[in-house]
Amino acid sequence: MFFIEGARLCSDAALSSVEIKELYVTENALNKYSDYVRLVENTAERSFLVSEEIAQKLSDTKTPQGVFCICKMLDKNTNIGKIKYNGKYIALEDVSNPSNFGAVIRTAEAVGLDGVIVSGGCDIYNPKSQRAAMGSLFRLNVIEVDDLPGFLTELAAKGMSVYAGVPDSNAHKITEVDMSGGVVCIIGNEGNGISEETCKAATKLVTIPMKGRAESLNAAAAASIMIWEMMR
Amino acid sequence: MFFIEGARLCSDAALSSVEIKELYVTENALNKYSDYVRLVENTAERSFLVSEEIAQKLSDTKTPQGVFCICKMLDKNTNIGKIKYNGKYIALEDVSNPSNFGAVIRTAEAVGLDGVIVSGGCDIYNPKSQRAAMGSLFRLNVIEVDDLPGFLTELAAKGMSVYAGVPDSNAHKITEVDMSGGVVCIIGNEGNGISEETCKAATKLVTIPMKGRAESLNAAAAASIMIWEMMR
Repeated sequence: MFFIEGARLCSDAALSSVEIKELYVTENALNKYSDYVRLVENTAERSFLVSEEIAQKLSDTKTPQGVFCICKMLDKNTNIGKIKYNGKYIALEDVSNPSNFGAVIRTAEAVGLDGVIVSGGCDIYNPKSQRAAMGSLFRLNVIEVDDLPGFLTELAAKGMSVYAGVPDSNAHKITEVDMSGGVVCIIGNEGNGISEETCKAATKLVTIPMKGRAESLNAAAAASIMIWEMMR
Repeated sequence: MFFIEGARLCSDAALSSVEIKELYVTENALNKYSDYVRLVENTAERSFLVSEEIAQKLSDTKTPQGVFCICKMLDKNTNIGKIKYNGKYIALEDVSNPSNFGAVIRTAEAVGLDGVIVSGGCDIYNPKSQRAAMGSLFRLNVIEVDDLPGFLTELAAKGMSVYAGVPDSNAHKITEVDMSGGVVCIIGNEGNGISEETCKAATKLVTIPMKGRAESLNAAAAASIMIWEMMR
């Protein structure tokens, strides 16, 4: 199970294929966010009215909206089968900052990526990540894999271009590689980058040319640019 | 004056034109970060040894590194004169989230923008923003203006392309506008976008085409893509 809060986020979950087990709502929220809450009530298995004090305890924020849900985690294995070999994907290896993680999911959905491949790193259901993702997590095809190098090797064998993003000026410029057909771009951990095994599984190492003295782009900015290059 | 913390950030300030008035350092930090601290000591007007207890009180983080500086704010008006009419700039109007703000500054420096124009929004010296910017603020040409529409009108009169980024599918696609010569791309407030007056001062409204159901990109992601389009 995982926990979410906020009228909009809970209604986003209700409109998706996520199973809502329990809804907790304050009387204030029932009035203030009635449209959102009604949507959630219609799909939640059970609903509970809670006091403001309980809402305060449940919440991660100082001024909670008073709408909370407990939902069933997505089945890891269903999405793996949904991968399209001619689709565009971003793969996140050990991305550990939940805000970065959520921001990438949001950007991926906004520009129309086919999905996000996740291996290691922060919990995809982390509340901070959910807030940054603004419901994108419920709508985007998120594929969790344990063995990322193995999975990418399979995708490459199916003809997909697998590009590992590295801060190395000798790698291929991101603007000069073939983005047609199926593409996976890999973003690595904020501190350590992409693992050696995963780099080996890639068909090419690619880089975002940098001119300034900032050592590298942050993971979310690098991901935004790579996602954009795939889709522009 | 403004306050910064962290061995790396303080040494970045020491290596820039920022005036360091006071350095506060713990004995532990003196040993652990001796190279960084020496750099700062050489330029700081005064240095103080502080206890771990004081460091804990000064710090914004749970486990402080124990290196802190008080620096002189940059003179607002010096940088205005440094604008290059054939340069590339991003303008931030009322961007209020300090992490977004800092991330944009970092990306701007990394890809080699000529500067950032700031009007309203969060304090450029905000500690969160400083952390996200990772010293870029000290190296990048940051131009603070009070009257953004007036300033942009002047730049347009000098022949610069001034593009206002809007979430409007009728605006020009960001990939289809002229990015040669001098360009300013404007990013608006996270909730309200760009003001009407500033939109009027722009030579074109531009947009990042979106395909997904996420209502819009977050400000930092949109800025990353716009900065990248100017420089790629």
